[in-house]
Amino acid sequence: MRSYHVDSGAGIDGLTIEEHPDPVPGDGQVVVAVRATSLSFRELMVLRGSYVLPVKPGVVPVSDGAGEVVAVGPNTRGVQVGDRVTATLFPSWQDGPFGPEHLAQLGGSLDGMLTELALLDASALVPIPDHLSYEEAATLPCAAVTAWNALTGLRPGQTLVTQGSGGVSLFALTFAKALGARVIATTSSPAKAARLRELGADEVVDYRADPDWPARVRELTGGLGADHVVDVAGLLEQSLKAVRMAGHVACVGFVSETAPPIDPRVLFASGATLRAVAVGSRAQFAEMNRVIEVNRLRPVIDQVFAFDDAPAAYRHYASGAAFGKVVITHV
Amino acid sequence: MRSYHVDSGAGIDGLTIEEHPDPVPGDGQVVVAVRATSLSFRELMVLRGSYVLPVKPGVVPVSDGAGEVVAVGPNTRGVQVGDRVTATLFPSWQDGPFGPEHLAQLGGSLDGMLTELALLDASALVPIPDHLSYEEAATLPCAAVTAWNALTGLRPGQTLVTQGSGGVSLFALTFAKALGARVIATTSSPAKAARLRELGADEVVDYRADPDWPARVRELTGGLGADHVVDVAGLLEQSLKAVRMAGHVACVGFVSETAPPIDPRVLFASGATLRAVAVGSRAQFAEMNRVIEVNRLRPVIDQVFAFDDAPAAYRHYASGAAFGKVVITHV
Amino acid sequence: MRSYHVDSGAGIDGLTIEEHPDPVPGDGQVVVAVRATSLSFRELMVLRGSYVLPVKPGVVPVSDGAGEVVAVGPNTRGVQVGDRVTATLFPSWQDGPFGPEHLAQLGGSLDGMLTELALLDASALVPIPDHLSYEEAATLPCAAVTAWNALTGLRPGQTLVTQGSGGVSLFALTFAKALGARVIATTSSPAKAARLRELGADEVVDYRADPDWPARVRELTGGLGADHVVDVAGLLEQSLKAVRMAGHVACVGFVSETAPPIDPRVLFASGATLRAVAVGSRAQFAEMNRVIEVNRLRPVIDQVFAFDDAPAAYRHYASGAAFGKVVITHV
Amino acid sequence: MRSYHVDSGAGIDGLTIEEHPDPVPGDGQVVVAVRATSLSFRELMVLRGSYVLPVKPGVVPVSDGAGEVVAVGPNTRGVQVGDRVTATLFPSWQDGPFGPEHLAQLGGSLDGMLTELALLDASALVPIPDHLSYEEAATLPCAAVTAWNALTGLRPGQTLVTQGSGGVSLFALTFAKALGARVIATTSSPAKAARLRELGADEVVDYRADPDWPARVRELTGGLGADHVVDVAGLLEQSLKAVRMAGHVACVGFVSETAPPIDPRVLFASGATLRAVAVGSRAQFAEMNRVIEVNRLRPVIDQVFAFDDAPAAYRHYASGAAFGKVVITHV
Repeated sequence: MRSYHVDSGAGIDGLTIEEHPDPVPGDGQVVVAVRATSLSFRELMVLRGSYVLPVKPGVVPVSDGAGEVVAVGPNTRGVQVGDRVTATLFPSWQDGPFGPEHLAQLGGSLDGMLTELALLDASALVPIPDHLSYEEAATLPCAAVTAWNALTGLRPGQTLVTQGSGGVSLFALTFAKALGARVIATTSSPAKAARLRELGADEVVDYRADPDWPARVRELTGGLGADHVVDVAGLLEQSLKAVRMAGHVACVGFVSETAPPIDPRVLFASGATLRAVAVGSRAQFAEMNRVIEVNRLRPVIDQVFAFDDAPAAYRHYASGAAFGKVVITHV
Repeated sequence: MRSYHVDSGAGIDGLTIEEHPDPVPGDGQVVVAVRATSLSFRELMVLRGSYVLPVKPGVVPVSDGAGEVVAVGPNTRGVQVGDRVTATLFPSWQDGPFGPEHLAQLGGSLDGMLTELALLDASALVPIPDHLSYEEAATLPCAAVTAWNALTGLRPGQTLVTQGSGGVSLFALTFAKALGARVIATTSSPAKAARLRELGADEVVDYRADPDWPARVRELTGGLGADHVVDVAGLLEQSLKAVRMAGHVACVGFVSETAPPIDPRVLFASGATLRAVAVGSRAQFAEMNRVIEVNRLRPVIDQVFAFDDAPAAYRHYASGAAFGKVVITHV
Repeated sequence: MRSYHVDSGAGIDGLTIEEHPDPVPGDGQVVVAVRATSLSFRELMVLRGSYVLPVKPGVVPVSDGAGEVVAVGPNTRGVQVGDRVTATLFPSWQDGPFGPEHLAQLGGSLDGMLTELALLDASALVPIPDHLSYEEAATLPCAAVTAWNALTGLRPGQTLVTQGSGGVSLFALTFAKALGARVIATTSSPAKAARLRELGADEVVDYRADPDWPARVRELTGGLGADHVVDVAGLLEQSLKAVRMAGHVACVGFVSETAPPIDPRVLFASGATLRAVAVGSRAQFAEMNRVIEVNRLRPVIDQVFAFDDAPAAYRHYASGAAFGKVVITHV
Repeated sequence: MRSYHVDSGAGIDGLTIEEHPDPVPGDGQVVVAVRATSLSFRELMVLRGSYVLPVKPGVVPVSDGAGEVVAVGPNTRGVQVGDRVTATLFPSWQDGPFGPEHLAQLGGSLDGMLTELALLDASALVPIPDHLSYEEAATLPCAAVTAWNALTGLRPGQTLVTQGSGGVSLFALTFAKALGARVIATTSSPAKAARLRELGADEVVDYRADPDWPARVRELTGGLGADHVVDVAGLLEQSLKAVRMAGHVACVGFVSETAPPIDPRVLFASGATLRAVAVGSRAQFAEMNRVIEVNRLRPVIDQVFAFDDAPAAYRHYASGAAFGKVVITHV
C-alpha cells in the first residue's frame, strides 16, 4: 500500500509517495481503507512549517479522510469490517473540554489519512451519515467540526455572521440555517454572493464594495449588531464591532501569518465574548452528524483530485480560489 | 365598544355580550383594538369551571388575541399608536423562572381579549412578526409559547415526539423542524397523518392502528427511545416508555379531567426528566417570535369565525375536530 | 486471594467466601488490592433479588471500594502501581448522558469489590483525594456520586431539602453547604437532628413531630417552597408539595419496595421538574472529587467492620440504624 | 436636603455641595434616604473625564449607595416606606443579557447616590440582606455585582485567580470560597498576602517577587493553568497565559488608561474564552444577595468617611492604598 509523506516546512514539492507493507491492527485498533481525503488550512501550515502543534518527521499528512474498515484488532468494541467511517482529528478527545492530554493529532504528531490504508484507534472512529458519499464525508473532521463547535451557543432566530467561502464558513452557514438562525455572509465578489444566497444566506455583504462591513452588519440588525460571528480571518476587532453587546465571537484561526492585535478597550466596549475554537470532540462530531443526517445536509465540494495528483490538489487549495472543499479521491 | 363576558363554569351558553364606554389608558397602559382572538384548551376549562387558576366573575374571556395599539397612557415606554401587538398570557412574567407573583392571567383573574378594545399593560405587549396576519398572530400567546417552552433543551438532530394535532402539538412540530430536529408525530387517522407529514413530520405513528405507540417510537429510534416528548395528553407513563434514558418529557397538561397516575418505578427506570410547563415568559415569547420571523413560519389555522359567532367557535373547538387553531376575527 | 460471592436473592446468609488464584491484568486492565468497601441500598436489593439491573450468578458483590493498584496490564494509560484509586459503579460511563450502553455495573453484571484483589478496567479508575483514607474513599462511588449528580442545577444561595440520614442525603447536605446553598434536612429524631446541624444543616424538620413536612418547608422559605429536593424515599408527591414553582426534585430511588403513585395534576400544579438520577459518570465523579479535595470534605462513617465480618456489616446496614456509611475494611 | 454635584473631568476639586428641596416621588418612583455610599474605579473615571459612558453636566456622582425608603409614589409595587434598599447601577437592566437599552446609569447619565435623598425607580431597588449594615450594603452595586457576574461559569472545585486587593477582587475571592472553589490571589506585598489568606485565599502569589505570575499559577495547578481568571488589570495576555485550555478570563476593566494589546495568536493558542463583564442585571444582584445572606458573607471595608469629607474619601481611594472598599456615611 502507498502513503504520502512530508516533513514540516518542506512545501508541496516535499510530498513523496512511498510503498509500505499493509498495517496490522493491534489492540483496540482498526485498519481503514481510505476512500477520500480533504484539505484544510492546517495542511498548508504543516507544509509551510507554521503549524502550531508538533509535526513528526516524514508524517503521513492530512487529518481529514473517510473510508471503509477492512481489519479489526483484538479488544475492539463497536466497529466491524465494512463500516463506513471518518476519524476525529484529535483521536483521544472523546468528550468534555479540550485539554493538553488531547493534543496528539492526525496529520501532525500522528500519521494522517493521505494513504491507502490508515491504522487508527477504534475509539477515534465516527460513523458516516448514510446519505453522504466518501468524498463528502472526507470533508467533515476539521472544517465541519470546527464550524459546529464555533456555533456553540447560537440560538434559533439569532443572527450569525460568516466570513468568505472557505470550508468552515460554508459549514457554519449550512448548519446555522438548519438550526433556524439568520445568516449574514461576507464575501469579496458578486459571483460568490450569488452562491452564498443559494446556500441559504439571508443577507450577503461584499466587503470589497463595502469595506466597513461591521457597520453594514449593524444596519442589517437594527443597529444592534449580530448575535454571533464565526471569525476565520483573525480580524477580531472588526468582528467585535459587528457583534451585539453580550454577543459571541468564535475565533477559528487566521488566514494569514500576521493577525492585527486587539485593543482590550475594543473588547471591553463591545461587552462581548471572544472564544478560541480548536476543532471539537468526538461527542461534538457525533452530534453534528445527527444534524447532518436528520436535515439531509451536504458539504459543498469545489473540486475532486485523484490520489496521484494530491500535489495539484494542494496547489489548487493554496490558490484560495476554491468555493468549498478540495477533495482527493483514493479509489 | 363590545365585550364578551362569562362566569367560571357557566358554559358556552353563559357567554354574553355587553356594550361599554371605550377604556382610557392609565399610567403604563395602552388600549388595543383587538383584531382577532384564538381558542385554547384553557378557554374550555374556564367555561367548564375546571380551570386551575382563579377566574374573576364576569371575566372577559380568552387569553389569546392580536390587534393594533390605538391609545397610549402616560409613562409608557416602547409602544406607539399603530403598533401591531399580541400580549403575554401572564402579563407580569417578563423573564426568568415562573413564580407565584406571576399568576395573574388574561382571560382569568384579569380581563382577556374577546372584546373590541382591550386595556393592557404596555409591559405585556409583544410585537407581531411582519409576515403574520392578525388572525395568525392571535394563535401565539398560549399554544405557541407553551410549545416553545416545552422544547427547552431539545437539540438539533435529536428526535421529538408530538401527540395529535392540537395547537401545542402542531407548533411543537413546526418549531422542532425549524431548529433541525427529527419529529415523530402520533395521530389517530390516516387523513391527519398526511397533513402532519406535509407540515414536516419525519414519521407518523397511528395510535389507533398501533396502540403500543411507545414501542413503535423505540423501533423508529434504533431501540433507544426519543430524546424529547411533548406530552399534551397526560399519559405520562406512556411518554416515559417512549423516551430514551436521560431524555425529557414536557408535561403540558391534560386533555381529559382524569389523568392516570404515574408509578415512580416507571419514572425511575426511565432515567428521564419530567417537566411541568406553564406557557412561558415574555422573553421566551420574544425569542419564539424571532424564530418565527427568521424562518417565515406560519401557524396552522383550522377555521375562522366572526366575533358575533364566538359561541360557534367555542363549540367547534370543543368538538375536538379541529386540525390547528380555531380563530375569531373581530374586524 | 479471597472473594465473597452471592446469588441474586440469596440473602445475607447466601454470602460465601472463596479462595482464588491472583488475577492477571489483560489489555487495558489493572489489579487493585482492595483496602475497604462500603454498603449502599443497592447491595440489599441484590441480596433480596429486587435489584433493577441484571445480577450474574455467584457475583462478587458490592459496587463501592477503594484500594491500591498492584498490577498493570499492557496498553494501559494513566495508571501506575501504587496509585490510590476507587472505581466508577458503571465502568463504561465516562462522560455525557447515561445510556443503555453503560448498564454493566460492578457488583451486578460485573464482579464487584468485596474481594481482596479486584480486576478492573483502567478507564474506570478515579484517583482518591489525598486527604481521604481508604475507608473514607470507599464510601464515594455509589452514594456520593449519586448525591453529586442529584444536585445538578442547584445554585449557590438556593435552598435544598434532604431527607433523613442515609448516605446520599448526608453527602447532599455536605456538598450543598460546600457550594453555598442553604439546607433544610428532614429527620425522625432529635438526636439525629443535632448531628445534622453539626454537619451544617441550616434547618432541621422532624417529620415524626411534624408529618406535614412540606408545609413546614414552605414556612421556612417564605411560602415559596425549596428550590431543590433530593428525594431518597420515593414520596414524590410530598416532595412536589415542598418544592417551589419551577423547582427541581431529583428522584434517587426508594427506601421501600412500594412507592405511592404520583397524580399528574400534582406534578402539573407544582410547575416543577422531576428527574430520575442513576449514580453518575466518571466525569461527574472526577468533578466531585475536586470539590471534596478543595473543600477538605470528609464522608460520615457510621461503623467499620472487618472483611471476615461482612455479613454483620450487611445486617447492621439493613437495620436502618446507621447514621452515615457502613464500611468494611479489607486490611 | 444636600447633594454633591460634579462635571465630567472636573476632578476631585470640582465636587460641590448644593441644597435642594426634597424630591417628590412620581409614578413608579421612591425617595431613598441614603445612609451610605461607596467608591469604585468608575467614580475616578467620571471625575477624570475618562468614563466610557455619557455623564450629564452637574451629575450627582457615585453609583453605589444604600438607604431607607422614605416616600413611595403611585403605581409602585413591592416597596414600602422603611424598606432597607440598594439600587442597581443600570436601573433598567432587570434580567437577561445587557443591551444598548440598558445604558442609563446612576452617577453618569442619571443622578447617583452622593446625596441625602435619592429619587429612584422602584424597579431598580434591591433589598439589603438582614445581617448587613448600610455601610456594608453600600459596597455592593458596582464591585460585588461585577465580581458575581465575572464568576459566571466557575464551578465548585475549580481554581480561580484574583488580582490584587481592590473591591472586585476581594468580592470575587469571597464569593468563590463560598461556592466551593479554590482561589489563587495575586498581590504586591507580604502584608496584603496575609490578609488575602485570612479571607480564604488558598494560595497567594506575590507578583513583585515573582513577575512571571502566570508561570507560578501553572505550577500551582499541576501545569494546567487556572480554570478562571477575573482580570481587573487589563493585562489580558498574562491572564491568557495563566488560564487552562478551554478556561475563562473575565475582563472587568482596566486600572490604567493604557492597556497593552492582545496578540490574537496568544488568544488562539490559549484555547480560552475572554468575556467582557459590565456589572450585572437586577436578577444577578438578587441571586448574589441570596448567596451573601445564606453564607453570612460580609464585604471588606477599608475606611469610612463622613458625608462632608467625601473629597477626602475620593483622595484616599485614588491613592490605591485601600484594601477593600472606601465608604462614605451619610448619617
